[in-house]
Amino acid sequence: MNAEIIAVGSELLTPFRQDTNSLWLTGELNKLGIRVIHKAIVGDAPDEMRSSFSHALSRADVIFSCGGLGPTDDDRTRETVAELLGRKLRMDDEILRGIQERFRRFARTMPDINARQAMVPEGATVLANPRGTAPGLWLESKGKIVVMLPGVPVELKGIFEAEVRARLSRIAPAERLYTRELRVTGLPESEVETRVRPLYPLYPDTETTILAALTGIQLHPRIWSADAAHATRVLDEIASRMGLALGEYLYSTRGETLEDVVARILTENRATVAVAESCTGGMLAERLTNVAGSSAYFLGGVVCYSNELKTSLVGVPAELIESKGAVSSEVALALADGVRRRTGATIGVGITGIAGPGGGTPEKPVGLVHIGIADERGPRERAFRFTGDRDRIRIFASQTALDSIRRHFLFPATPRP
Amino acid sequence: MNAEIIAVGSELLTPFRQDTNSLWLTGELNKLGIRVIHKAIVGDAPDEMRSSFSHALSRADVIFSCGGLGPTDDDRTRETVAELLGRKLRMDDEILRGIQERFRRFARTMPDINARQAMVPEGATVLANPRGTAPGLWLESKGKIVVMLPGVPVELKGIFEAEVRARLSRIAPAERLYTRELRVTGLPESEVETRVRPLYPLYPDTETTILAALTGIQLHPRIWSADAAHATRVLDEIASRMGLALGEYLYSTRGETLEDVVARILTENRATVAVAESCTGGMLAERLTNVAGSSAYFLGGVVCYSNELKTSLVGVPAELIESKGAVSSEVALALADGVRRRTGATIGVGITGIAGPGGGTPEKPVGLVHIGIADERGPRERAFRFTGDRDRIRIFASQTALDSIRRHFLFPATPRP
Repeated sequence: MNAEIIAVGSELLTPFRQDTNSLWLTGELNKLGIRVIHKAIVGDAPDEMRSSFSHALSRADVIFSCGGLGPTDDDRTRETVAELLGRKLRMDDEILRGIQERFRRFARTMPDINARQAMVPEGATVLANPRGTAPGLWLESKGKIVVMLPGVPVELKGIFEAEVRARLSRIAPAERLYTRELRVTGLPESEVETRVRPLYPLYPDTETTILAALTGIQLHPRIWSADAAHATRVLDEIASRMGLALGEYLYSTRGETLEDVVARILTENRATVAVAESCTGGMLAERLTNVAGSSAYFLGGVVCYSNELKTSLVGVPAELIESKGAVSSEVALALADGVRRRTGATIGVGITGIAGPGGGTPEKPVGLVHIGIADERGPRERAFRFTGDRDRIRIFASQTALDSIRRHFLFPATPRP
Repeated sequence: MNAEIIAVGSELLTPFRQDTNSLWLTGELNKLGIRVIHKAIVGDAPDEMRSSFSHALSRADVIFSCGGLGPTDDDRTRETVAELLGRKLRMDDEILRGIQERFRRFARTMPDINARQAMVPEGATVLANPRGTAPGLWLESKGKIVVMLPGVPVELKGIFEAEVRARLSRIAPAERLYTRELRVTGLPESEVETRVRPLYPLYPDTETTILAALTGIQLHPRIWSADAAHATRVLDEIASRMGLALGEYLYSTRGETLEDVVARILTENRATVAVAESCTGGMLAERLTNVAGSSAYFLGGVVCYSNELKTSLVGVPAELIESKGAVSSEVALALADGVRRRTGATIGVGITGIAGPGGGTPEKPVGLVHIGIADERGPRERAFRFTGDRDRIRIFASQTALDSIRRHFLFPATPRP
């Protein structure tokens, strides 16, 4: 069973706005065993809309439209579909009353134009939209299904979940899509690919997408199957073999963020953490605290951009900064140890580096970052050389620092961080 | 002159990956006076590709494809276009030598399959791609132009800039798109719309898109015109009238980020800033330092999540926290004043609040945030009640704190922050 998704709206043809509904919808359809074979984005010109819908009807089994159900003359999804399928539009009194009621609830009178939203093609099923005025519509014709949904994401999702999923589920094929999400940090994409590629021929029915982001690499092995137990077994096996191939670089087999993993590890170890950051400017603290409940393990942090603050707030000796430079192993060690002592945390993390674009020298180039991590046995340190622009360097540095915390607990015997 | 953009690649039909090339391409085409009337996303199935390209050829003047120029059997853009336009594919020796040379440079031998990337439809112009192996292709037939570009963004942009823009410019219509980008913070989208809507009928030739993001609202007035001076005059006028309608909430008429605006204001005033954050967890420091050269005005910050650190690092009296609570006007004032004194900054900013999801009470609900700002005359404070989830509350709080710094310098007479 194949689907096409048509996003309707002139604003989606500007440089400013992206269609995001179709990603969510694709995920939901795939879970039901329906493959998306084409996506289209059209404005509100009647000819373009007609041509897109007619094209979709010629090749997909189910056509989803998102948008174009509003009250103005530009909202022509209903008219276009009705015309193409040879159905008349009629006013649905119940929908009309619902829209009027909705306006009354907000103490307003319904403008006349909103009556358009109560027009329904003959034979269509109305899909209630408790979050907005325009209901969704489900229309079957000559073996095809057209599902018209509003473009507002919360309305689209609400209608899909309450009205569409169960209807599709009854007619969808037995074969469904099953997936896993593995996450890796500290390896380049090409190295991840080299490590997992030998597994592909062993699992010819699974397909794996590798996505590289600044905060790590995601692997999505997936399999279409009519047998849930079989799919789960195959995915468990491939995930476990990928885990062996990726080793300590794998931080989640369940699609968690690194922040979530670190939060779990700190909580399980009843440990607390404090950070002293220079070039990351607060990004490490921000990431450690974007997890709900982080006050259980995060005590606080110091963003010591100036050398004076490295000394006054964290106790890094001014002579050390003078002799070794603010960006040095020694200062990273002193930051990690100092912030740990001043806050009483189990673990202290120190970061100092050159995010650029200025400030680099031949000995200490842009991208050089020292990360220190201290516990009751003292501090350790490691230097990294990240490439890219300021933003990228700061993200890599905070990512690597988070990973140092994970490694500190999981691999205490290996060289740290 | 109308264009259609076709993004090619099965991964773009998964829930995981979004086509982003088309947004950039749309912006560039609009500047040249070319409107995008349709966008399509197709996988690599030959039938689907043929149907999408043939559909596009039936209605657009210029068809851009992104992707499907790789070396494998799945990369069928060349074949599809050649077949539809009735052109033979021939091997281009110069391209082949270039690809071989590229592999040699990376000390590798060219795999045989890469020779496919040297296949060129008869009559096509080859568009050099110094950043990758697959060149772009430009093909004219029966009044239509087909431009085939690789899907890798950096390669696509490079080829467009070096080879495509000038070619299109010679044939594009005289009418071009001119735009402005205004940015607003501190007003809800509906209020922004209410304020600027009365201007729309006065400028019937311009169209304005309003985009709401967590970090503020963007207004994009735009006009298609063959007369650059006229367009500039109209946009200057509408931007200036929008500015009057939006007042102190407007922070940029040039599309700058609030961070950039604050950086400029601090630099112009030769002022320095230091921050003491609780609920934002480092996000304010992170945003102040994501601007290159921020060490000129940002001294440092303290993320004092625990009450002990509010006292030990910033000098907030423990009795004050005990009597008023960590989330209170008094503690926000003490944080702002304390961090200013301890760092010697011109301006100190203090933030304390409840980001949730836990920790709220009827008197101090989730979303309550106090923001203090201190200068040599002492600290002032204001309380806000933000709605939404943890992430949203933290972003709104850091956004409002940044805006307090802007307002501190621009509107010293009005109530602060």
